[in-house]
Formats: sequence, structure tokens, C-alpha cells
Amino acid sequence: MIMDQRLLLLSNSTLPGEPFLGWPAEHIRDFLGSPKRVAFVPFAAVTFGHDEYTERVAGVFKTLGHEVYGLHAEADPVKALERADAVAVGGGNTFQLLRTLYTTGLLRAIRKRVRNGLPYIGWSAGSNVACPTVMTTNDMPICEPPSLHALHVVGFQINPHYTAATLEGHGGESRDQRLAEYLELNRDMTVAGLPEGSLLRVEGPQVTLEGRPMKVFRHGQEAVEVPSGARMGMELNVR
Amino acid sequence: MIMDQRLLLLSNSTLPGEPFLGWPAEHIRDFLGSPKRVAFVPFAAVTFGHDEYTERVAGVFKTLGHEVYGLHAEADPVKALERADAVAVGGGNTFQLLRTLYTTGLLRAIRKRVRNGLPYIGWSAGSNVACPTVMTTNDMPICEPPSLHALHVVGFQINPHYTAATLEGHGGESRDQRLAEYLELNRDMTVAGLPEGSLLRVEGPQVTLEGRPMKVFRHGQEAVEVPSGARMGMELNVR
Repeated sequence: MIMDQRLLLLSNSTLPGEPFLGWPAEHIRDFLGSPKRVAFVPFAAVTFGHDEYTERVAGVFKTLGHEVYGLHAEADPVKALERADAVAVGGGNTFQLLRTLYTTGLLRAIRKRVRNGLPYIGWSAGSNVACPTVMTTNDMPICEPPSLHALHVVGFQINPHYTAATLEGHGGESRDQRLAEYLELNRDMTVAGLPEGSLLRVEGPQVTLEGRPMKVFRHGQEAVEVPSGARMGMELNVR
Repeated sequence: MIMDQRLLLLSNSTLPGEPFLGWPAEHIRDFLGSPKRVAFVPFAAVTFGHDEYTERVAGVFKTLGHEVYGLHAEADPVKALERADAVAVGGGNTFQLLRTLYTTGLLRAIRKRVRNGLPYIGWSAGSNVACPTVMTTNDMPICEPPSLHALHVVGFQINPHYTAATLEGHGGESRDQRLAEYLELNRDMTVAGLPEGSLLRVEGPQVTLEGRPMKVFRHGQEAVEVPSGARMGMELNVR
């Protein structure tokens, strides 16, 4: 069913001490190719403005030869998406992002275009919403979207900013415990634990990991470490 | 409106290296007083059983002189709540807990009885659901409750397991950043950042902090550190 899609799904935008969108810049250049008009979705921003966010992203994409316009600034964002050659969805709070994708009508519009081949770039929350649901986000549920169902333009779940590290002396659940709870209630799903500095590049039915190794989680199985460069199908089984 | 309620809201059940419900045991003893029949709500457990959870809690409460029965084991949990002298709601996953409170009808039943004076003990997720909403939980949204609105038997929000610490070299949001995002979208709310080893004791309109100091967060203000023993109103202003 979903065969034509092209996505670049990043764990995070920026590594400590590096410029904004520094590590993924060359991946974005290679993924987008010739100059594109990129529709940017800044709705995950909560404590800073949509204009400011769009300007920062446009600055980076300009150095790569692409033009960015913010869908927040359009009277009819669904219509404005029509003229895009690609769409980019920025990180921030996943719940605020998803709620706004619903209220603007962009959820359906982006899903339809991406399933028909519109290139999609997302980072952090922008990678969460590409999945069937946002149930593997790390974000706080600071507002209530109509549903946790998301774009569903890939068949697996992503846990961005994945880390096995825990705070010393702190009793809160580890990331691995949280994902085990998710899989207990969602036994058919596959979760990519995508560490910072990693991305999944989706070309039709093929998924390639670039950057750092990731962990793949399934119910009732030990997590599987996947090396950078691995080629997988939509179930994230290494070929 | 809410004037008769009595609650003991714990950040967490257990400190590292201590027995289950070790640190709060004396607080629970003092709060409950004479022997009580305590209805236990184990629905936050995801990767372990409701029976097992109830047995562990019953074991601790027995040493304090109280009898515990699990509402999960009752054909009619709402009716079974009627014979309780107190209710205890255990930690685990907040979303799973809240979803089950809705599907069993216990959300309304517990709210009504607690507003009319039934003593309530909660820890972690069990403290989250006592608040107006669960929007300040740390948990992963592994399932979808009908709403994020919760028991609303206190007027403020709790962030349990509160810590200002962050993982070194990790780019994910700090707890303080997450709470700032919550307050940006919910500007009239007050959030208690309750560290592990702390609890709020609510007696009618009066709230007392016991254990370690906490931080109170409000929109557009610096967080306020509140010392143990502080007496507050429902807006968490120190008197």
C-alpha cells in the first residue's frame, strides 16, 4: 500500500556544541537533491515563535540550495502545501505538533502527499508524527490532541533521542522500561530506538540506518542492535 | 467547593536501596490512623500483574494495621469501592491507569467519594491522576485514555519524580523545559515539582509538604523552592 514514500527521519536536529541542523546537513543535501520549495511545519515550537523557528530552518536549507516557507504563515496551509516539492516537520513538543496538524487539516493533507511521494524530512517530534501513533514520544502531554494516531507514513514506531542511560540515584523508569511497557500493550509493533546523531532514510519499502547504531525493540524479544548502514524493510528486519 | 478531601500524594513509592513503600510508611500510618479497609487500584501496572501488585501493597499496609483489597478483582469495582474506608492508587504508567479508571467507571466513583472525605493515598501515577489533568506526567503515552482530564480532587498539578538533573551530553528536554512548555499552554495552573522522597498531605483546603524540599512552577515566574513542613493553600502559596 505505502510504496512510493521518501522520508528522512532524524532522531534530533543538533548535537551538543554543534550548529543547528549541523550533523544532518549533508544527509538533507543528498536526500533533497536539486533545488526544492520546502514547506516547513513549525507547530512543535511552544516556548519560541513559529516565525523564528522557520527563519532558523530556512537559513540552514538556503545553504543547501533550498527555499523554505512556513505553513503557519499561510491563510490556507492545506492549499499552501500543494506548491511544495518537499515537507519538513520540526521538533519540539509532539502533542502540540499533532494537535495542530489535526486542527489545520494538515494531518490528512501531508499524509496523502507523502504517501504519493512528496519527500518528508522530520526530526524528533517531526519523526514521531510520521509513525502510526505518537505513543513512543518522550514528550510531556502538555495538551490534548483529538487522537494519538498520527501520519502513519511508515509502519514502525520511532523513539527519538533514544538512550539506555539513566540518572544516577533516580527511581523514574528507564527508556527501556518505558518501551517494554509500550510493547506490552502494543505487541505487534516494532520500535526503532534511534539515538541522537542517527536517522532512518526511507525509500519506498526500503529503510536504511545512517549515523550511530540503533536498537530495535519487539515484544517478548531481546532488543537487537542494528549497525549504521543496515538495510531493512518496513518491519526493520535487517536484510 | 472541594473542602473535605484528605489526601496523601507521594512523588514515589520507594527510594533506591530501601524496601517497597519504605520511606512513606510512617506517613501512611499517621494519615490513616485507626484500622481501615483500603481499596487498592493496581491498574497502573503494565509489565507485572494486578494480583502481584495488590499483594505487595497489602503486605506493607498490614504491618501498619490496615486491610487491603484490590478493586481489579471485583466483578463490580464501583460497588466494591462503597465498602472502603480509604483508597490507594499505585504508580506505574499514568495513561494505562487513567484509561482503566475511565473504562471501569471508577474515575467518577473515586472522585465523588474523595470529594466527600474518603482518604486517598497515591504515589507517582497515583498522584498524577489526583490532579485536574495528567498533563504533567513523565510517562510515555503507551495507550489512549478517552481524555487527559483526571480525578481533579486537588486544584494543582504534580510532577512526580521531579529532578533538575539531566543526562550529560544528551539533547532531550530537561524536566524544567518540559514544565515551562506545559505552563506556556496552561498559564493559570500551578505545578508542584515533587522530588522523590517527598509528599503533599492535603487536609481540606490545607496542603503540607513533608520530606524533601520541592519546587513550585508558575507561568512567567521563577520557580519557588518550598521547604519541608511548609503549609500552603490549594494554589500552593506558602502561608
